Amino acid sequence: MFEARLTQGALLKRLLDSVKELVTDANFDCSETGISLQAMDNSHVALVSLSLRAEGFNPYRCDRGFSLGVNLNSLNKIMKCAGNEDVITLKADDSSADSLCLLFENSSNERVSEYELKLMDIDQEHLSIPETDYDATVMMPSAEFQRICRDLMVVSESVTIDVSKDEIKFTAEGELGTGNVKLKPTSTIDKPEESITIELGQTVSLQFSLKYLSNFTRGTPLSDQVMLCLSDNMPLLVEYKMDIGYIRYYLAPKVGDE
Amino acid sequence: MFEARLTQGALLKRLLDSVKELVTDANFDCSETGISLQAMDNSHVALVSLSLRAEGFNPYRCDRGFSLGVNLNSLNKIMKCAGNEDVITLKADDSSADSLCLLFENSSNERVSEYELKLMDIDQEHLSIPETDYDATVMMPSAEFQRICRDLMVVSESVTIDVSKDEIKFTAEGELGTGNVKLKPTSTIDKPEESITIELGQTVSLQFSLKYLSNFTRGTPLSDQVMLCLSDNMPLLVEYKMDIGYIRYYLAPKVGDE
Amino acid sequence: MFEARLTQGALLKRLLDSVKELVTDANFDCSETGISLQAMDNSHVALVSLSLRAEGFNPYRCDRGFSLGVNLNSLNKIMKCAGNEDVITLKADDSSADSLCLLFENSSNERVSEYELKLMDIDQEHLSIPETDYDATVMMPSAEFQRICRDLMVVSESVTIDVSKDEIKFTAEGELGTGNVKLKPTSTIDKPEESITIELGQTVSLQFSLKYLSNFTRGTPLSDQVMLCLSDNMPLLVEYKMDIGYIRYYLAPKVGDE
Repeated sequence: MFEARLTQGALLKRLLDSVKELVTDANFDCSETGISLQAMDNSHVALVSLSLRAEGFNPYRCDRGFSLGVNLNSLNKIMKCAGNEDVITLKADDSSADSLCLLFENSSNERVSEYELKLMDIDQEHLSIPETDYDATVMMPSAEFQRICRDLMVVSESVTIDVSKDEIKFTAEGELGTGNVKLKPTSTIDKPEESITIELGQTVSLQFSLKYLSNFTRGTPLSDQVMLCLSDNMPLLVEYKMDIGYIRYYLAPKVGDE
Repeated sequence: MFEARLTQGALLKRLLDSVKELVTDANFDCSETGISLQAMDNSHVALVSLSLRAEGFNPYRCDRGFSLGVNLNSLNKIMKCAGNEDVITLKADDSSADSLCLLFENSSNERVSEYELKLMDIDQEHLSIPETDYDATVMMPSAEFQRICRDLMVVSESVTIDVSKDEIKFTAEGELGTGNVKLKPTSTIDKPEESITIELGQTVSLQFSLKYLSNFTRGTPLSDQVMLCLSDNMPLLVEYKMDIGYIRYYLAPKVGDE
Repeated sequence: MFEARLTQGALLKRLLDSVKELVTDANFDCSETGISLQAMDNSHVALVSLSLRAEGFNPYRCDRGFSLGVNLNSLNKIMKCAGNEDVITLKADDSSADSLCLLFENSSNERVSEYELKLMDIDQEHLSIPETDYDATVMMPSAEFQRICRDLMVVSESVTIDVSKDEIKFTAEGELGTGNVKLKPTSTIDKPEESITIELGQTVSLQFSLKYLSNFTRGTPLSDQVMLCLSDNMPLLVEYKMDIGYIRYYLAPKVGDE
């Protein structure tokens, strides 16, 4: 028996929204400690990893580990039927679960919606992601990162990210010309959600696909801040942290002069 | 001579909007007592009936009954040229009316707009709709009904409506799974626009096309509340009541297991 | 060396927006006194003339006159990357300028964006527009003019503008019927932005393409008021005046009964 009730249902809606463009089908792995999802994107270039702690739900109940294979597009359609103020409860039988039950309750009026989503068998190898000490770790407003990705797509399909001790620089070069955006670390303590911080082991300069980065920024509504972790020859990690867990995107840098 | 002046012009704009998707051409029947329109939808499945009382206009003048054949799409285009604060006056000569005159006046500035819409001859049998004692009559917030129709379309093209004494339930079943929404009668007297009431002779369970119901919910801006009247083997009646009259939609239930 | 810094960067964004639908490529002519642009629209029917005074910028520096050939579509894309609160600086080397540098600075955070737009050689004859004494000069709210153009497009592709001492009338005639909007001069001194004034030498009645007029109304966000200047057999002048300069559109009247 699996049951997880989330008072802030809107969070689940946003989470789904931040994954569904990248991944079509995926397993939600449920265990005593929480719910997680890990999947390569459809073109096997990026990796998404999602984790929600059991403590974030009330109640949370999962007797033993099992997997719920879900078509994320269908799940997202159903999630859109939940109001932003709704309490959402997920339910499944662990043994013979062939459907996921979603319950949307709105305290303000007497409405209760209940959806049953058919489950599917999904073969998925679980990639272990090694913990890494990154050369550069940048924290910045997530909306700012989103905007930079969107703006530079005007110029090119790729962006080069340069991180030094006192600046992070995004550069794009294309047919109509070039563009770059430079950010400096802030010292504003009064608005932590607008702060920009750089932790640097050594400077990095890496190039990434803007299409993927833009896709990752669908996580923007989940958190005021985004964390970018970069190391030479390592996949970039883009993380949005929530009270209840996190979503992480990984993307390998572009190589050569392509 | 026909003349009808409506201070709240926005109401006419919304009315047009609630009809134009269902019906292309229709007669506005003008008489001493008011204006009415009755038409089958283009695929002859649903019926729309609109009635505006003479007392709702100021002044209202119509010497003897006659019909104005109108292309609703064209009329709607012209109506969009009226500001939401405009006073709207409709005018026509009763005898040789080959056009409908629409006057839009905005008190705040010195603008007067005047449109002449060409009329057309429309053959239309007038269906008499018998007054019916329905098995179940439900009053509920119109926005809630709109939302339920929109949500359940995710799951299926049909919805089953079950009404019992203490619950109205909307159920849809499709390829991705099932969905249902249950509403209970409310007891809130302080917010009548949010109340849900059920008057029941006997329980009903009927299935309808969601495409049509969704179309009917274009009447939502006309009224805070919608009335659903159901009886076995009878067309569903969906009514939006306004100070000045009403719009009613009729839809036959689906039969069998289609 | 050319450099022009504008505190209200949003103004440049709106200016671009008001030109880019009409003209694809154009020269920005920079001189000691300011920046100007003059171009026929792509189908050689309308003329756009833009002028920005040096005093509107701070600082403004331009040692000697020269031209920057720009693809307005590309420039507009880059302009969209400027925030509405950004300070915008334009820079170019006068001698060998093969690119225009755009600098977007946001005071509230530490972001600086820098774009380089490739320039192009554009052959452009400079038309001298003779100063004219117009028969009729109308000042009216720009939003009102925009709305009239949009509304009457429902009826026809052409509009006839009639100006007399005490009224300006816009008339359109088409298949679905006719429409006209009449405006009277206002006497409200307290809201100058809503005032309508008519200066008349002699009455005029001229017909114009609504498609072009609608296009001109993209200048609406630049100014509360628009000026229409009409004379028989002369191009209509539509002007939006800003603190920093103006944008003028010219359009020849339609002839005959076309």
